[in-house]
Amino acid sequence: MGGGEWRAIESLQNAQAKRWLSLTETRGIKKHGAFLLSGRKTVPEALKRHGVRFTAVLAAKAEDAEALPLPAGIARYAVGRALFEMLDTNGTGFPLLAGEVPEMAAADFSKPPKGLELLCALGDPANLGALLRSAAAFGVSRVVLMEGAAHPFHPKALRGGANAQFEMSFLRGGGWSALEGAKGPLVALDGAGADMTAYDWPRDLRLVLGEEGLGVPPALAATRLAIATTGRVESLNATVAASLALQAWYEARGKK
Amino acid sequence: MGGGEWRAIESLQNAQAKRWLSLTETRGIKKHGAFLLSGRKTVPEALKRHGVRFTAVLAAKAEDAEALPLPAGIARYAVGRALFEMLDTNGTGFPLLAGEVPEMAAADFSKPPKGLELLCALGDPANLGALLRSAAAFGVSRVVLMEGAAHPFHPKALRGGANAQFEMSFLRGGGWSALEGAKGPLVALDGAGADMTAYDWPRDLRLVLGEEGLGVPPALAATRLAIATTGRVESLNATVAASLALQAWYEARGKK
Repeated sequence: MGGGEWRAIESLQNAQAKRWLSLTETRGIKKHGAFLLSGRKTVPEALKRHGVRFTAVLAAKAEDAEALPLPAGIARYAVGRALFEMLDTNGTGFPLLAGEVPEMAAADFSKPPKGLELLCALGDPANLGALLRSAAAFGVSRVVLMEGAAHPFHPKALRGGANAQFEMSFLRGGGWSALEGAKGPLVALDGAGADMTAYDWPRDLRLVLGEEGLGVPPALAATRLAIATTGRVESLNATVAASLALQAWYEARGKK
Repeated sequence: MGGGEWRAIESLQNAQAKRWLSLTETRGIKKHGAFLLSGRKTVPEALKRHGVRFTAVLAAKAEDAEALPLPAGIARYAVGRALFEMLDTNGTGFPLLAGEVPEMAAADFSKPPKGLELLCALGDPANLGALLRSAAAFGVSRVVLMEGAAHPFHPKALRGGANAQFEMSFLRGGGWSALEGAKGPLVALDGAGADMTAYDWPRDLRLVLGEEGLGVPPALAATRLAIATTGRVESLNATVAASLALQAWYEARGKK
C-alpha cells in the first residue's frame, strides 16, 4: 500500500477491525502488543515528535486526517462511522493512531537506580496516566510497573498521560517481594512517615507507590515519607501525593 | 418511624426509589438538593464525624449496616438488590447514605478573600473530587464553583473527595466576568506565568483554576504562576497542578 492510499474498512467482522476493537481493553493490548492513541492535541503532537512509533492512522473520513503530519510509510484506514465510534473510546471524534507497545524488560533491582526510578502499582489507568504525565514533567525516565499496575497504553492511561508514555521507558517489576535486597535508596509515601519537606532527596533513588487506598506493604524496607497536611482528610489522592514527591525531588535536583 | 426500624423498598417504581435513582446524576442532585454517599471507608467516617448531615441509610440488607454508628433519628431503608446496585454507582457493595446538599450562596467578589479561596471550573467530577481532597488537606475552607464546574456532590466527586466535601463551604461564582474588579489578590496557574517557587504567597488570596485543558481566560487580570517542569509534556493534569499550588501556599503559611 502506497503512502497516500486510504483503505476502507466498514465491517466489524473484518479481522483488522476485530484486532483494533480488542485494543480498547487491557487484554487485547497485551495480546497484540499494540495500542490506539486518541486526542485532538495528543495525536498531532505525537505524530510530530514520535511519528516513527505509529503504524497506522484510522479516520472516519480521509479528509479528517488531511491536516495531520502523517509519515510517508504509515498505513491509512478510512473506517466506517460505527466502527470508528467504538474505537474512539475517549469520544474525541478525531483520527486515531495505532502503534506498537514497546518491549518491557524485567527490572533488575540488584543494580542501583539512576535518577528517580518510579515503581508503581496504581491499578486505575486514568490515575496511572496522570501520574506518568507528572513523571515526565519532573524528569522521570524509567517507570517500573509492579504487579497490579494498570497498563500504561490503555486508552484511559494514554488520555491521562498526554503523550508522557512516549517520553519514558517501562520495565516489569513483579510483586513487592522482588524488592527484598534492592540496591540503592528506596523511598515510599506513607502517612505515618517522616515529614517530606525535611528530606534530603538523593539524586538516584527508587520511589515506590502502592495501589490506591492500600499503599505499600508495611514489611517493605523503605524510607517512609509523609506529606504534611491539616489532617482534615484521611489521605491525599495517590496520584496527587506522588506528584508532590516527584516535584520535591525535581526541585531539589535543580538546587544541587 | 422509630430509630431502629427498617423500611423495605424493592420496586424501582416507588417514589422514594425514583428520587434516589435521580441522585446518581447532576440533574437530580440539583433538583432535589440531595446526594448519595458511598464507600467502605468514607461512609463510616462520615457518620462518625458528620452524622447529623445524613437523613437516611440505604442497605441491601439491614445486617450490612449493623456495625455502622447510625444516629438515632436516621431513616433506615432495606432496598432490593437490583435497586441497590443501581444506586451504588461506585460499586462499593456497602450501605449508602443520603444527605442534603448544603445551601450555596453567591460569592461576593467585592469583599477580599479570607485564607485561600479556591475558584474552580473543573468540569470532570472525579477531578473536582480529588481537588477538594487536596483543598481540605491544605487548609482551604471555601470553594467557589464557577460556571462549568462539576457538582461537588456528584457520586464521582464524592468518591474522589474522600469526605473533603463535609469540611468546606461552597459558593456559586458565575462566569469569569464576575471577577472583574474582584478585591484582593487573584492568582491563576498558567504555563506562561512566573515561576511559582519564587512567589511570596499572601495569606489571603483567590486561586483561580480554569476548565481542564482550557485554563483561565487570557483577559482575566490575575497574577499568573507556572510550575517549573522539564517541558517534556505540554502541561500537568489540572488537579495535580492545583494541588502543587495549594501545598506551596500551605507550606508558606506554616513558615510565617
